Amino acid sequence: MKPSIPKGTRDFLPNQVNKRKYIFNIIEGVFKKYAYKPIETPVMENLSTLTGKYGEEGDRLIFKVLNNGDFLAKADKEAIETGNSNRLIPSISKRGLRYDLTVPFARFVVMYQNEISFPFKRYQIQPVWRADRPQKGRYQEFYQCDVDVVGSDSLVYEAELMQIYQEVFAALKIPVTIKINNRKVLFGIAETAGVKELFVEMTTAIDKLDKIGEEGVVTEMTNRGIPSSSIDKIMAMLQIHDLDTLIANMNSEEGKLGCEELKTVFALLKDQGIDDLKFDISLARGLNYYTGCIFEVMCDEVKIGSIGGGGRYDNLTEVFGLKGVSGVGMSFGAARIYDVMEELDLFPKDVVQGMQVLIVSFDEAAFRYGFNVVSRLRKAGIASDIYPKPSKMKKQMKYANDLHVPFVVIIGDDEINSGKLTVKDMENGQQSSLDIESLISRINS
Amino acid sequence: MKPSIPKGTRDFLPNQVNKRKYIFNIIEGVFKKYAYKPIETPVMENLSTLTGKYGEEGDRLIFKVLNNGDFLAKADKEAIETGNSNRLIPSISKRGLRYDLTVPFARFVVMYQNEISFPFKRYQIQPVWRADRPQKGRYQEFYQCDVDVVGSDSLVYEAELMQIYQEVFAALKIPVTIKINNRKVLFGIAETAGVKELFVEMTTAIDKLDKIGEEGVVTEMTNRGIPSSSIDKIMAMLQIHDLDTLIANMNSEEGKLGCEELKTVFALLKDQGIDDLKFDISLARGLNYYTGCIFEVMCDEVKIGSIGGGGRYDNLTEVFGLKGVSGVGMSFGAARIYDVMEELDLFPKDVVQGMQVLIVSFDEAAFRYGFNVVSRLRKAGIASDIYPKPSKMKKQMKYANDLHVPFVVIIGDDEINSGKLTVKDMENGQQSSLDIESLISRINS
Repeated sequence: MKPSIPKGTRDFLPNQVNKRKYIFNIIEGVFKKYAYKPIETPVMENLSTLTGKYGEEGDRLIFKVLNNGDFLAKADKEAIETGNSNRLIPSISKRGLRYDLTVPFARFVVMYQNEISFPFKRYQIQPVWRADRPQKGRYQEFYQCDVDVVGSDSLVYEAELMQIYQEVFAALKIPVTIKINNRKVLFGIAETAGVKELFVEMTTAIDKLDKIGEEGVVTEMTNRGIPSSSIDKIMAMLQIHDLDTLIANMNSEEGKLGCEELKTVFALLKDQGIDDLKFDISLARGLNYYTGCIFEVMCDEVKIGSIGGGGRYDNLTEVFGLKGVSGVGMSFGAARIYDVMEELDLFPKDVVQGMQVLIVSFDEAAFRYGFNVVSRLRKAGIASDIYPKPSKMKKQMKYANDLHVPFVVIIGDDEINSGKLTVKDMENGQQSSLDIESLISRINS
Repeated sequence: MKPSIPKGTRDFLPNQVNKRKYIFNIIEGVFKKYAYKPIETPVMENLSTLTGKYGEEGDRLIFKVLNNGDFLAKADKEAIETGNSNRLIPSISKRGLRYDLTVPFARFVVMYQNEISFPFKRYQIQPVWRADRPQKGRYQEFYQCDVDVVGSDSLVYEAELMQIYQEVFAALKIPVTIKINNRKVLFGIAETAGVKELFVEMTTAIDKLDKIGEEGVVTEMTNRGIPSSSIDKIMAMLQIHDLDTLIANMNSEEGKLGCEELKTVFALLKDQGIDDLKFDISLARGLNYYTGCIFEVMCDEVKIGSIGGGGRYDNLTEVFGLKGVSGVGMSFGAARIYDVMEELDLFPKDVVQGMQVLIVSFDEAAFRYGFNVVSRLRKAGIASDIYPKPSKMKKQMKYANDLHVPFVVIIGDDEINSGKLTVKDMENGQQSSLDIESLISRINS
């Protein structure tokens, strides 16, 4: 039998795991400095928790886990007889695989509301599953990396999240533009243009500006039933990039409030010397649960779509029975960040470096001596290894090459007698004779 | 709707995540020093990969994932009509959740045999799923932590793995006894006693020595059809704890080879100053795929069963079509290690410490000032936070208490005017007045 893995899933080889860990470690380090705490939720959730939260399409794409044991005994007979797969599901499956980290987080907040302190600041880095048709760059199992704070409507968290974006991407050395807008501003535009009841239609059209251009947006709005006089007003307002001008031109209390919220965030950030956050009035973010500030991160040098995004929501936990919990959060597009890092060659070399030193030996005595050397190196904290048997030089050096080891220590009679190790620098091929202490300092330097 | 999670699964709150990470970080650090590399495999495997590898009981306990879409269209009609759930599975489910890390690793080695270099040293820390009946301490989703090297029969790896056990448990401060034996030694005992064809029966009985005592083992062997003269010989040999005496008393080439293997491991370790590894001739390890050295770790101070174990196997990858790959590996019982650490109070305090400093403020001006202070602290690498709004002192201090923050910085007019922050040490209640640089050095010290 020739083994394989399911379509849309991946194995991760050591270099890939280490590179991903490098990204997550940097992100986590920043999260912690900002006093966010990690949580983890189970891979399997009750289907009742997941169903109905992601729309009809989402419900279809949730992986369902078959009940164990004699599941047919309780199966919906009528669903079977009528060949109705969808209807059969609830009677033979009560669990599903996590589809995102947001719904499990909302469930978590409601379940542990008496054990956690609000504002509750959490981050979560775990895989999720979606039965999307697999294609290049889209997988059925992939990591999400979310950070949220719930239980406060303070705009200090919007500012803080922007600082986190800035700090993380600076640490990763990815050049980015961080864009911010506010759903209330968009609502204000709709209200000022007299089409507040068509707010969703308007934002859906504006959301496509990048892809279809201004003319396309006009056509889209027309098709979606927005009168042309309103469209003119909307398009004119989208040209305004100054918040005070916008307030002056806005005939909407909510719109003005959105502008004020943005001004507060900008002011808080300016105090910290951050002034490169970009107000983008056309930023809409598809998800309709956002109610305040929204943000998005684009890489300046690789065309790949957004590598991060988020916003404020007011009703995350309501569906699980807890009202009035405002929150704000964002996510890092881990897979795209990985691809950008690869394309811009931003991973430090030592990320994929498994070990610093490999010991090779010619006979049993040399091997025993070498095993003592490798133990000493490891005690000194140096990742190192010994080829497991005295063997032909060629074979052992091939292993060293395959593993890209920077230093090879060669041990034979001379080395045992003199106590000086022959050390080969694999990058330039130079050999030197060093005692073990000198070898340790050389590698540590 | 009142939210819940499936039976047998768990949410992990921040302290739990941080404690588990503490354990895994120590283990991973040691793995890396010994030149082991991380891999990750998908949560979902093809059912064909998993089925038949864990016995009939195991097959039942694998979680099966329902095929997406109109799965009934291809369902086995006869299985439905006869109400045969087991038979229906293959036609409606082609994926299952990972049941352990060993089978996916074997699959991985076979699939990537041309991309990896042998000996291949890998570790893997990921959750697995089993539909066991949930009970105290037994979950349906739990982490496994495995380390293996495949593609070499060198005993240096047995020695190295014992070093890893020693180093990890020393770093965790868990007092342990590491026991070692060799399946060939057990076979030698069976052969010497003239019952080599009853080897499995014998080891199954010996495996229970801890639980049922010597008399129990004798009864068990009798019940399993081992003649009483052989039992006498077996029980006599189990009293021998010296390898040379054992060799002298053994009438079995394979048994003698097992003893020699153990002697080699002991000699390699003695060179490194390790002499507390315990040869335990009655150690059997249930799993029948072990063929050489076997080991087990017991905690000296908490009765909880083994917290680690492993051994050498010769045929791991054969089921996937790759023969002759010898390997040796072991695992850490992550959940039990966690429980032991809790019981012996071994987690360092700062593991659960989310942040060092919380800033509290009395009015808008103080809040703005405080936001600058918290940004400075974070820039200095100090995990810190500001209460998100100027509020009543009592409310803010309660938040600080709930989060167990060691230092609270109180900001009002005096602090803004003087530039000196009021810092309250929450452990002893003392207040001091410090400028921000002094605060940073105090916390970092």
